[in-house]
Amino acid sequence: MLLEELRKSVLEANLELVRRGLVLYTFGNASGVDREQGLVVIKPSGVDYDELRPEHMVVTDLEGKIVEGKLRPSSDLDTHTLLYREFADIGAVVHTHSEYATSFAQAGMAIPALGTTHADYFYGPVPVTEELTDEAIGGRYVHETGLAIVNRFKGIDPLAVPACLVAGHAPFVWGRTPHDAAHNAVVLEAVARMAYRTLTLEAQCKGVSQALLDRHYFRKHGASATYGQSC
Amino acid sequence: MLLEELRKSVLEANLELVRRGLVLYTFGNASGVDREQGLVVIKPSGVDYDELRPEHMVVTDLEGKIVEGKLRPSSDLDTHTLLYREFADIGAVVHTHSEYATSFAQAGMAIPALGTTHADYFYGPVPVTEELTDEAIGGRYVHETGLAIVNRFKGIDPLAVPACLVAGHAPFVWGRTPHDAAHNAVVLEAVARMAYRTLTLEAQCKGVSQALLDRHYFRKHGASATYGQSC
Amino acid sequence: MLLEELRKSVLEANLELVRRGLVLYTFGNASGVDREQGLVVIKPSGVDYDELRPEHMVVTDLEGKIVEGKLRPSSDLDTHTLLYREFADIGAVVHTHSEYATSFAQAGMAIPALGTTHADYFYGPVPVTEELTDEAIGGRYVHETGLAIVNRFKGIDPLAVPACLVAGHAPFVWGRTPHDAAHNAVVLEAVARMAYRTLTLEAQCKGVSQALLDRHYFRKHGASATYGQSC
Amino acid sequence: MLLEELRKSVLEANLELVRRGLVLYTFGNASGVDREQGLVVIKPSGVDYDELRPEHMVVTDLEGKIVEGKLRPSSDLDTHTLLYREFADIGAVVHTHSEYATSFAQAGMAIPALGTTHADYFYGPVPVTEELTDEAIGGRYVHETGLAIVNRFKGIDPLAVPACLVAGHAPFVWGRTPHDAAHNAVVLEAVARMAYRTLTLEAQCKGVSQALLDRHYFRKHGASATYGQSC
Repeated sequence: MLLEELRKSVLEANLELVRRGLVLYTFGNASGVDREQGLVVIKPSGVDYDELRPEHMVVTDLEGKIVEGKLRPSSDLDTHTLLYREFADIGAVVHTHSEYATSFAQAGMAIPALGTTHADYFYGPVPVTEELTDEAIGGRYVHETGLAIVNRFKGIDPLAVPACLVAGHAPFVWGRTPHDAAHNAVVLEAVARMAYRTLTLEAQCKGVSQALLDRHYFRKHGASATYGQSC
Repeated sequence: MLLEELRKSVLEANLELVRRGLVLYTFGNASGVDREQGLVVIKPSGVDYDELRPEHMVVTDLEGKIVEGKLRPSSDLDTHTLLYREFADIGAVVHTHSEYATSFAQAGMAIPALGTTHADYFYGPVPVTEELTDEAIGGRYVHETGLAIVNRFKGIDPLAVPACLVAGHAPFVWGRTPHDAAHNAVVLEAVARMAYRTLTLEAQCKGVSQALLDRHYFRKHGASATYGQSC
Repeated sequence: MLLEELRKSVLEANLELVRRGLVLYTFGNASGVDREQGLVVIKPSGVDYDELRPEHMVVTDLEGKIVEGKLRPSSDLDTHTLLYREFADIGAVVHTHSEYATSFAQAGMAIPALGTTHADYFYGPVPVTEELTDEAIGGRYVHETGLAIVNRFKGIDPLAVPACLVAGHAPFVWGRTPHDAAHNAVVLEAVARMAYRTLTLEAQCKGVSQALLDRHYFRKHGASATYGQSC
Repeated sequence: MLLEELRKSVLEANLELVRRGLVLYTFGNASGVDREQGLVVIKPSGVDYDELRPEHMVVTDLEGKIVEGKLRPSSDLDTHTLLYREFADIGAVVHTHSEYATSFAQAGMAIPALGTTHADYFYGPVPVTEELTDEAIGGRYVHETGLAIVNRFKGIDPLAVPACLVAGHAPFVWGRTPHDAAHNAVVLEAVARMAYRTLTLEAQCKGVSQALLDRHYFRKHGASATYGQSC
């Protein structure tokens, strides 16, 4: 993907978050990575969405050093770049304070796999990080937020579970492309809404079986996928 | 109904689901059956709703063999066709992941008949299937989903209770026509929203009496219906 | 108010219910009364709201006998006319299945006066009727629904508490004019939403004091009202 | 700020409350203060929002005496003016019955700081006042409402926690400008929605650490702020 295309798709992912009601004012950001060039394209900080143009996107290297752009990048940049360095197969990261996913993050609860909507996108619970220590919060906080995610994902394939809740904060979501990451963020919020209602109806709900999780996840992912028109 | 008319009404039912907010992205499908010709018309899989045209609808026989159409049919086709074979009086099937009905399905709870809105459309609780066994999930899963519904409806008239929740999954809804099936799906979601709130206010709510269920259901259905302008 | 004006204001009240999201499909109706002529103007049954015109309104006498109009009146007519006969000061009645008020009705719970929004409109809890007996349901059901409201209001001034929940069914709301009745129905639903959330946060919430109830209610009503531009 | 500008920004703040869904009918009001001239600009009482023009705004002195304007000022004027007299650094006050914040007020519960969205705007719980005594309610009620807020804020910096819930009533919110006060009211409602869901999922949720509260609050406020494009 050319950098110009990446700028457009990152902008489009940011706008999709707004259209789908995941973002209040400027509380959200999306980025994408060009692996070949080692460049990250990210939304600028605190700019109104309806004024955003592709040329406002900020370009940095994988360490977060600004390469191009006059605006300050999203204040969450260091989380994005750490995820790109640690999760080699992801191509885009989205951060929102979408309300139901954030409510689980605030409660310090993972979103359990309670149904097939979840299983179609997330191969297991959407995990929640440990709380950050006072030292981490007082230090390189944004970087430490990324570290908490990476630590939580030891033993989990980031593309099989493309989202994590940061305890007391909100979700980070990713995917192969900016389009996919935004799509996953929208589905995460729908899954969180349904999990909230399911658990407030039946707190002991134990969720889907491993067999159902496998069936739905592999229906949409991997070599034997049978959903859609693409295969 | 001519096949051409059926295509249009199946498309229209699919669009009604979107307009009423029952469908996120492509998570839903509607079909209709022409009993005389033994043909089923169903939405193609994974196509954006705003691009759908009558000619995109896929036509199959009652065993799900494609008769006409270049696109792959909805991945839930085998559930639809089984319901047509087993429930002789239904003319259309709708499947959505509408969020409140799905939350009950995830909780493994039937939607009890708690009020007259419910009773106007569903003559008794909207039941939930047994959980599918690992063998059923690992086998002809979509067909087995339909079997779980059919098994749950032993002793229930499918036109008196035109919906079923599949445990851990979501609702299937039906009716005499695509219009009716979509309408029933919209009402089911409203009924589920109200049941959720009623039960979270008063978990012991016992619901309407048999007399009230009879009165409301037969007000809109059967020979002595008194609602609307049609009789 | 001339009958022609009343037709228009009854239609307008019906449309306000739709605009404010209180009505799904055709689940609602509003009427108004001309006390001098002894005539009731009511929405016809089961007609789409976007096709409704003033001339579609049905005119009956206070016993529900049709005086003018080609369409069948709302199936709830007998509740409306009974309320007009029994509550001498009301000028309009609205019935909806607005979802939060209906959830309280389904739970068999009155809506307690938990805050000043409630107190501004309803001088005390919005009561819920007794459940109708099987005999009442099997008899003149719609008339009996009105009787249950009237019985519940013994000792309550209908203009001080202009709404009642019918157990297992939904709210009936009234006012001096069709505009006021629709407005009260919209506020009732907002009050019900807030009461639902208050009670699910704090089930033991005891509600406002009599002093606060008095202060807010009489701020908007009666001789010493201080709200708005009209005095 | 010239008085003419203040009228426009007060009107704009009132309209922002409507656009963001915080206001039903006329249940809300915003005001601003010109500290140099000692003048308050406030919405008139009970006027439809879509008819409001800058010239309809009412101008009073800091004691609430009308200086300019033909319309009666908002009935909550005495609360606004008291807050201006007691909280020397605030420039605007907003009052709404936004539904989730009001639900906390009705429950008599502060909104605890459960996450970073809260911490970005409110440096600690959003407090709830004591219930007003019958004497206060029966006396200068609107003034007493302001006093209850002022008493509750002993030891709290009003600009660090720019909102208070009045028990059994609803929130009052403030800021340096009408724009900021309206923005804070919108965020308060989002924070209340998420707190409601968090607490109904996990009633024992203890909220963010002091370190996280500090980090987020000072990220957006004070000399070392790093958010947005302005520094």
